[in-house]
Amino acid sequence: MTITVGVVGGGQLARMMIPAAEALGVTIRVLAEAENSSARLAATAVGDYRDIDTLLGFANSVDVVTFDHEHVPTDLLTELETQGVQVRPGPHALVFAQDKALMRARLAETAVPLPDWRVATSAVEVEEFVGQHAGEAIAKTPRGGYDGKGVRVIHSAAEVADWLEVGEVLLEEKVPFSRELAQLVARSPSGEMRVFPLVETIQQDGVCAEVIAPAPETTDDLSARTAEIARTIAEQLDVTGVLAVELFQVGDDVVVNELAMRPHNSGHVFTEGAVTSQFEQHLRAVLDWPLGDTSLTHPWSVMVNVFSDAGHERITAALETSDRVRVHAYGKEPRPGRKAGHIVVGGEKLEDVGDIARRAAQAGERP
Amino acid sequence: MTITVGVVGGGQLARMMIPAAEALGVTIRVLAEAENSSARLAATAVGDYRDIDTLLGFANSVDVVTFDHEHVPTDLLTELETQGVQVRPGPHALVFAQDKALMRARLAETAVPLPDWRVATSAVEVEEFVGQHAGEAIAKTPRGGYDGKGVRVIHSAAEVADWLEVGEVLLEEKVPFSRELAQLVARSPSGEMRVFPLVETIQQDGVCAEVIAPAPETTDDLSARTAEIARTIAEQLDVTGVLAVELFQVGDDVVVNELAMRPHNSGHVFTEGAVTSQFEQHLRAVLDWPLGDTSLTHPWSVMVNVFSDAGHERITAALETSDRVRVHAYGKEPRPGRKAGHIVVGGEKLEDVGDIARRAAQAGERP
Repeated sequence: MTITVGVVGGGQLARMMIPAAEALGVTIRVLAEAENSSARLAATAVGDYRDIDTLLGFANSVDVVTFDHEHVPTDLLTELETQGVQVRPGPHALVFAQDKALMRARLAETAVPLPDWRVATSAVEVEEFVGQHAGEAIAKTPRGGYDGKGVRVIHSAAEVADWLEVGEVLLEEKVPFSRELAQLVARSPSGEMRVFPLVETIQQDGVCAEVIAPAPETTDDLSARTAEIARTIAEQLDVTGVLAVELFQVGDDVVVNELAMRPHNSGHVFTEGAVTSQFEQHLRAVLDWPLGDTSLTHPWSVMVNVFSDAGHERITAALETSDRVRVHAYGKEPRPGRKAGHIVVGGEKLEDVGDIARRAAQAGERP
Repeated sequence: MTITVGVVGGGQLARMMIPAAEALGVTIRVLAEAENSSARLAATAVGDYRDIDTLLGFANSVDVVTFDHEHVPTDLLTELETQGVQVRPGPHALVFAQDKALMRARLAETAVPLPDWRVATSAVEVEEFVGQHAGEAIAKTPRGGYDGKGVRVIHSAAEVADWLEVGEVLLEEKVPFSRELAQLVARSPSGEMRVFPLVETIQQDGVCAEVIAPAPETTDDLSARTAEIARTIAEQLDVTGVLAVELFQVGDDVVVNELAMRPHNSGHVFTEGAVTSQFEQHLRAVLDWPLGDTSLTHPWSVMVNVFSDAGHERITAALETSDRVRVHAYGKEPRPGRKAGHIVVGGEKLEDVGDIARRAAQAGERP
């Protein structure tokens, strides 16, 4: 008997679960949004994940349901669970990755460090929060934001008037961070947990552009703290699968920025950079199989995203820059600014590795 | 435009090309023998590769044709080439991996070291050869043998009377080897070549059971020589894709045992053990893309084959033995003695790595 994992969503995260599933001997099925999805090789259904019949039909063809993205409405996932489907992570956990206001409220019940925050429903509340924070705040729509969308730096309530018209606005202090970090952990239904090494993430225009593993100049104390934060969140929110905790570093401290409950851009570096990739770890976790070693395989690994286009001309241009370049193309139609692929390079010296990866990612770029 | 590679044969080698194709952004299509093949995820056609119409129909749906096995008749491949199909390796090279007698005759024209050999068509010729070699010889059917099948140790012509009735018999001296080695090389149509590190292969009952990378206690001189042998064969026979040269070590010397023109069991260790896997290197070579670095990623890596069954119970049993275990299940129905999967472990100490890999491969084995 073969075990079948169903992935809702046909993006690059689902695509990159395919090699892991093949190695584990697990059948993978994908419910894709459209015919020509990134994960089309494993797509057995094409349809709308917001439609309960589509979702149920797909779920009934697999042993475990997991996700390429966090957009499936919570009530539909609860309905799946009611019908006996194994949903991992479950809606009771996933809701905190879907709704940033709920996430802040839930994390405030734990010991993990957060920036100042509040949920505002009126202009008065926004002005009050901005006034308390030197005239500046980060405003977010609780739901639907990603890659910098649904996020604004504001100085007055007028700047979120449109959002207030339709619902709540999450306000956060603008943290004077020195850098951004990401701490990944995987957790099984039976409670086994494995943290990955702490990585530094470099954003451009609100989008992850580069990841360095391990995060340079990190004290043991800091990485022990971020590991503890990730384990605490995974356990207390009952997350299953991979949890990515995005963090701001402020001095020697960190605060939690965002959560993702799925493999994450910051973990792409581990496919070559660690003994076990985040994609295999995610599958092992949602299947409740033993988790793998997350030790690094190189002193340094750098991941650089490839934007807009990762067709064969761009990929061969990247491979021509160095024989050490590892490429991952997402099989997407070219579109300006979209994440189309990534490059990973590992080695002994961070500077060399970063240079090789960046040069490869830029090769063949259209001007 | 996506580039499409077509693989004839749906076995584990085709299966393990899938992750490489996904990473490179190349579409992979497989012509499988049966519905439930190991490479079923990428199977777009099921049919008989000995049927020219089936083969042509498949070939016309892809940009380059390559192989999971060496059994496609040479005349059909020549017909494909005549029709303008890119066949890599081409039939003029592949024939030497298909026919061991032709291989010996062709290699005898090069400088590479061979055991004594001859082609016999009569009992008299067999007795003559056996008499010249201390009353013992290795007899092989020129075509169709694999994993120890079609090979006999003989002491008289009577032992190959059945083979002589239907055709020629290849006779080789029984080489007093101290160990078996494998040297892999990849070569592109444009002539670029990359050798992999030399590995030691350990056979049981004529079947590869274990591979150690790099081959222990190997002098630089020996590995330089095996690399040169592989490069010479690849170049002079105009091989494209991965070429595996199986070697016997005798004292400080080697002689060529067999050739395979495709990814090979001895190269499975490189998926985790080298920067570039043999599967990705094969695809890059048959596409005439730049080849990748073949440096080892661990001081030692050991691959152990899993026989008979690699279903999820066996795989989870293997994963439970150590978090460092990397598994590869081939998605095959259980059958006694068949290659069902393999385990790779990498690390600092050969003894530890071998112990962990062997223990994992044995875990969950039926008595």
